[in-house]
Amino acid sequence: MNTFGNRFRFTSFGESHGAAVGGVVDGCPGGISLDMALIEEDLEHRKPTASWSTARHEADQVEFLSGLYNGKTLGSPIAFILRNTDCRTADYNDIADIYRPGHADHTYEARYGIRAVNGGGRASARETAARVVAGSIAKMLIRPRGIQIHAYTSQIGTVCLNVPDAEVDYSRIYQEPTRCPDHKTSKEMEALLDEVRKNEDSVGGAVTCVISGLPAGLGNPIFGKVQSLLAAAMMSINACKGFEYGTGFASAVMHGSELNDPYAKDAAGHISPLSNRAGGLLGGITNGHDIIFRCAFKPTPSIGRAQRTCDADGVMQQLRIRGRHDTCVVPRAVSVVEAMAAMVIADLTL
Amino acid sequence: MNTFGNRFRFTSFGESHGAAVGGVVDGCPGGISLDMALIEEDLEHRKPTASWSTARHEADQVEFLSGLYNGKTLGSPIAFILRNTDCRTADYNDIADIYRPGHADHTYEARYGIRAVNGGGRASARETAARVVAGSIAKMLIRPRGIQIHAYTSQIGTVCLNVPDAEVDYSRIYQEPTRCPDHKTSKEMEALLDEVRKNEDSVGGAVTCVISGLPAGLGNPIFGKVQSLLAAAMMSINACKGFEYGTGFASAVMHGSELNDPYAKDAAGHISPLSNRAGGLLGGITNGHDIIFRCAFKPTPSIGRAQRTCDADGVMQQLRIRGRHDTCVVPRAVSVVEAMAAMVIADLTL
Amino acid sequence: MNTFGNRFRFTSFGESHGAAVGGVVDGCPGGISLDMALIEEDLEHRKPTASWSTARHEADQVEFLSGLYNGKTLGSPIAFILRNTDCRTADYNDIADIYRPGHADHTYEARYGIRAVNGGGRASARETAARVVAGSIAKMLIRPRGIQIHAYTSQIGTVCLNVPDAEVDYSRIYQEPTRCPDHKTSKEMEALLDEVRKNEDSVGGAVTCVISGLPAGLGNPIFGKVQSLLAAAMMSINACKGFEYGTGFASAVMHGSELNDPYAKDAAGHISPLSNRAGGLLGGITNGHDIIFRCAFKPTPSIGRAQRTCDADGVMQQLRIRGRHDTCVVPRAVSVVEAMAAMVIADLTL
Amino acid sequence: MNTFGNRFRFTSFGESHGAAVGGVVDGCPGGISLDMALIEEDLEHRKPTASWSTARHEADQVEFLSGLYNGKTLGSPIAFILRNTDCRTADYNDIADIYRPGHADHTYEARYGIRAVNGGGRASARETAARVVAGSIAKMLIRPRGIQIHAYTSQIGTVCLNVPDAEVDYSRIYQEPTRCPDHKTSKEMEALLDEVRKNEDSVGGAVTCVISGLPAGLGNPIFGKVQSLLAAAMMSINACKGFEYGTGFASAVMHGSELNDPYAKDAAGHISPLSNRAGGLLGGITNGHDIIFRCAFKPTPSIGRAQRTCDADGVMQQLRIRGRHDTCVVPRAVSVVEAMAAMVIADLTL
Repeated sequence: MNTFGNRFRFTSFGESHGAAVGGVVDGCPGGISLDMALIEEDLEHRKPTASWSTARHEADQVEFLSGLYNGKTLGSPIAFILRNTDCRTADYNDIADIYRPGHADHTYEARYGIRAVNGGGRASARETAARVVAGSIAKMLIRPRGIQIHAYTSQIGTVCLNVPDAEVDYSRIYQEPTRCPDHKTSKEMEALLDEVRKNEDSVGGAVTCVISGLPAGLGNPIFGKVQSLLAAAMMSINACKGFEYGTGFASAVMHGSELNDPYAKDAAGHISPLSNRAGGLLGGITNGHDIIFRCAFKPTPSIGRAQRTCDADGVMQQLRIRGRHDTCVVPRAVSVVEAMAAMVIADLTL
Repeated sequence: MNTFGNRFRFTSFGESHGAAVGGVVDGCPGGISLDMALIEEDLEHRKPTASWSTARHEADQVEFLSGLYNGKTLGSPIAFILRNTDCRTADYNDIADIYRPGHADHTYEARYGIRAVNGGGRASARETAARVVAGSIAKMLIRPRGIQIHAYTSQIGTVCLNVPDAEVDYSRIYQEPTRCPDHKTSKEMEALLDEVRKNEDSVGGAVTCVISGLPAGLGNPIFGKVQSLLAAAMMSINACKGFEYGTGFASAVMHGSELNDPYAKDAAGHISPLSNRAGGLLGGITNGHDIIFRCAFKPTPSIGRAQRTCDADGVMQQLRIRGRHDTCVVPRAVSVVEAMAAMVIADLTL
Repeated sequence: MNTFGNRFRFTSFGESHGAAVGGVVDGCPGGISLDMALIEEDLEHRKPTASWSTARHEADQVEFLSGLYNGKTLGSPIAFILRNTDCRTADYNDIADIYRPGHADHTYEARYGIRAVNGGGRASARETAARVVAGSIAKMLIRPRGIQIHAYTSQIGTVCLNVPDAEVDYSRIYQEPTRCPDHKTSKEMEALLDEVRKNEDSVGGAVTCVISGLPAGLGNPIFGKVQSLLAAAMMSINACKGFEYGTGFASAVMHGSELNDPYAKDAAGHISPLSNRAGGLLGGITNGHDIIFRCAFKPTPSIGRAQRTCDADGVMQQLRIRGRHDTCVVPRAVSVVEAMAAMVIADLTL
Repeated sequence: MNTFGNRFRFTSFGESHGAAVGGVVDGCPGGISLDMALIEEDLEHRKPTASWSTARHEADQVEFLSGLYNGKTLGSPIAFILRNTDCRTADYNDIADIYRPGHADHTYEARYGIRAVNGGGRASARETAARVVAGSIAKMLIRPRGIQIHAYTSQIGTVCLNVPDAEVDYSRIYQEPTRCPDHKTSKEMEALLDEVRKNEDSVGGAVTCVISGLPAGLGNPIFGKVQSLLAAAMMSINACKGFEYGTGFASAVMHGSELNDPYAKDAAGHISPLSNRAGGLLGGITNGHDIIFRCAFKPTPSIGRAQRTCDADGVMQQLRIRGRHDTCVVPRAVSVVEAMAAMVIADLTL
């Protein structure tokens, strides 16, 4: 349950306030020069960006333990760790016996009979830092094949990005603290986040992801459909509540005559769909167009304002969460969506 | 890619116009009396129901080949087949060289270098009949544990079911040809389907599914989250374009203060969330409430009205699909959603 | 537990006296013309050959249910069945409540709480007929790569084949009813088998298998070592008690100086070991030489002579097994060893 | 290929002369107090013991990185590392371009296009230290169920242990540097090892393993047979060339009438085989008796005496291996056999 993928396999480990988070990437071919700058950049993209981000600041320094020889991959498992350096366990002393609403305290305890109180333990999004490192390695495998992955914030609360997918300027994504590539929309999102934060509340949002440069014929049908793999990957991200691709939920109100993408021979002589309402996939297999999908994220369950909930004895308590948290998970989830998508595609292309 | 699940494993096989569709269920414990009536009932629920359903009528007679001894399971693999009896391959003669828009003709050919022209071969929803049989066996394993699964049509085109999830009368689901449990809404859906059919077009919709009777603590976190398993299962169903659970995509506009479910001791002395905005899952693990999820389906790509598309030589053709098809896949997808959900839960409870 | 392999995946089903045995091959590429003659030939090789073979004569007629289109593979799962036509359940009436020594009656009952009395149910070697069909399909994938697999009887009881592996005449294997490729040795084995059969007893033996035409660098290290895959495959065959490759158990008394294969540049300019004491594998990966391994088989547990054992009530009984059985499993196991080896190699080369 | 097991899953990483070896244990239940003394003891058992052992002395200090909270398992992955502290890479400078006979230098390079020259990289038995830690954790899961595992040296070169399996004094195993539990035999083995070492050569041997306290009915048939799992596990250990259980290869010369174990009701009223020639398994499933198996190991390929072999250019070279090596791998393999067996059984019992 902590291993993802088949050919490109990532095993993740670590708790929020344990010694380290980390992972093991297995199945990476030998002879590849690890691009340490890309790993650092990707980790940077996951870091808190603004006053409405968590005040926990982790160095996210990666130590590689195996699988490399003179900077090149050996084909053997690549193990790495990121030590946790900015833990503040005192924040959790008061709430050790309280089930935080919207968190996994209660369900982990029901599942395992025990839970790591500090920082949510394994259920914390701290774990996703390791996913970002593995995702960077996955990108190193797919980029030479011309495949690019771009995720961005397309919604925070009621503020939506209204730029069509095809017109998004990817170069702006990480210029904006919200990871929304349109400056004006990003500013509106920031204003909303400031307001929500002042209210000691949190807010949800959505991430859009575009995978381009894919050949037709990638993936598997039936239970191995690319959309199944992507959906499972995205739903594994903390706080993700929904996944859709192509026209997604809007398909429900559409007619076949408006949704079907007709085929034609393109300029290069390849037969290919003329349009991409399908979102790049038919029968679970790539059709040569971009895969486009969208994920919904719920508001951070940790909020500053008082909540009523019970403790382990069932006594109702007034809860005020003092831990350091993000007002909205979406800006930081963008790089995690990207990492998970990269792993799915690397797994398919190996 | 044709095997689903880990402990309860289902391997599916068969093409739309081949000798048979069928499957192998592995991991079923020994000593269970197969409930043949349930299997027949579930298959009945998947059959065409009205003038806007396909005119292909398959007997769906199940032959069991192994795994049973005097009607009881042996613990060994249960293989079964449903022979295809109502094939009309002539329908496909004219379109053998044409890539049907919205279908997997082109992607299967790109993937395998070959495709079964008749009836869409393996990409046809005919394959889901085998899933329904396996789903019935899964239900036999989870029902004795008090777990029930109910799926129903909650949307067809612009007609939505406006009854709250908790007030749905499950006993009505299969009384209605639309599988929408509210008679008045169902009638509106039928009117819409008649109209769409007259227009030689098709329409999309959505299915809601409720899994009740689950204990808290079922499932696994990180990459084994129940929502990941369910999402992958649902996205593997033909025409499914989106998956959401709990507040789903609506979470994007919500605040933590309105979404969080507070905990309290219930009448029976168990600590449990007071409300169920979470949709039954926190951190990937059941919280003791019902799992509620929703899937979006696109309109059937096969439509009667003329479409422009190209053939294998890239020459544009006028395409009129004469095969027998459903105006909307949703009414028949309901039993498939149920079957896939049953397999996911059986896999978790074994 | 009834599925074998990762990329070339074979799911097996069926009981000895059930409706059929069969299987599903998943992962076979599209566009391959199934060589039906090879399948028939391989099944023929598994059939009883002499008076000391079982008197049960199965037609072993294969019906393909899916995965083919005009005789070519589609890339979708290939399901097939062999109906059981020569069952004699009456043979088992008297022993329904008796635990046959050396059989799996008792362990299956302990595992599943139930067992198929007739013919040993799933534990019968009848199941291996399906493996032979899957093995034939595997051979169709590896032969075009120049890889050949030859298994043969190298020992029955105290009669051993004394021809060096490299001098074995593979063309003689299936000319001899014992599947021992040396005519004189085979005659000695036949004499032994006749004698053992007259004594209403059974006898063990060994099978040697040579896989040739392998490139260096095939396979995976650590837990995916080729010898691990082959050992698991062989130990899954009924009655197999041991596996060794290269110098095998004899390695225990050898010195490094006599076992190590030195490297040199060969005539074609490739660097390769000069000798093959390693048996074709180093560090779990092929070294370019033939893989050579050997499997030991125990005597058939079903014997005609009287045995003392107890029934389900624990009462001691005199047991005389009347079912139709082989005096020695080895001659018929040869084709099964070949089939399993073919699947392992197909899995590695896909 | 670096992950072992299904429910109890161990992912191994690390090269001989890299930063560390280590692993991730996934699937361990929550709430178990890790027995650090057992881990240390098991690691101690794997350490070099005598002049004929390697002169490389690793501290084997385990650092746990995740999965624990106040010394108890959380149910989340348990990651651990053992830093490599006694590397002497200079030993390998001279042989960087030479393919060592009997080693995986050539096959790794053929497989991955690259290899870690120092210490054999991933192919070194240094990797097995991590297996021992995971095996200790596995033992913590199976011991409370009354299951014990004892491996011991039963052969080195021509010196064999002649004590019957049932009379072996397990308490002596780790008292002897050879890990052979009979003092007199052990002394003979030591004398042999001294002589072989003086000859700058190496020698092979065998390990016997007994798993006791197993209930009947554990394991799975067909491709999941316990003997398949054990064989794969043992063949994954460096230098292992053969696996047999029960009467093993000797079965080849036996008759059914002498091998079959008759059933009877035992003193406790359970029906069980009277004898254990089967080696504890029938049809792949435990029969309630001890599982007894034996593994053959080849002589260490690294020997001091001169060998002729070629370099990367194909030029023949005289090779003298200066690295620090064991004269015989068997004494140190004993604890690795035990660890792998423990993981197989833990996987089956979870």
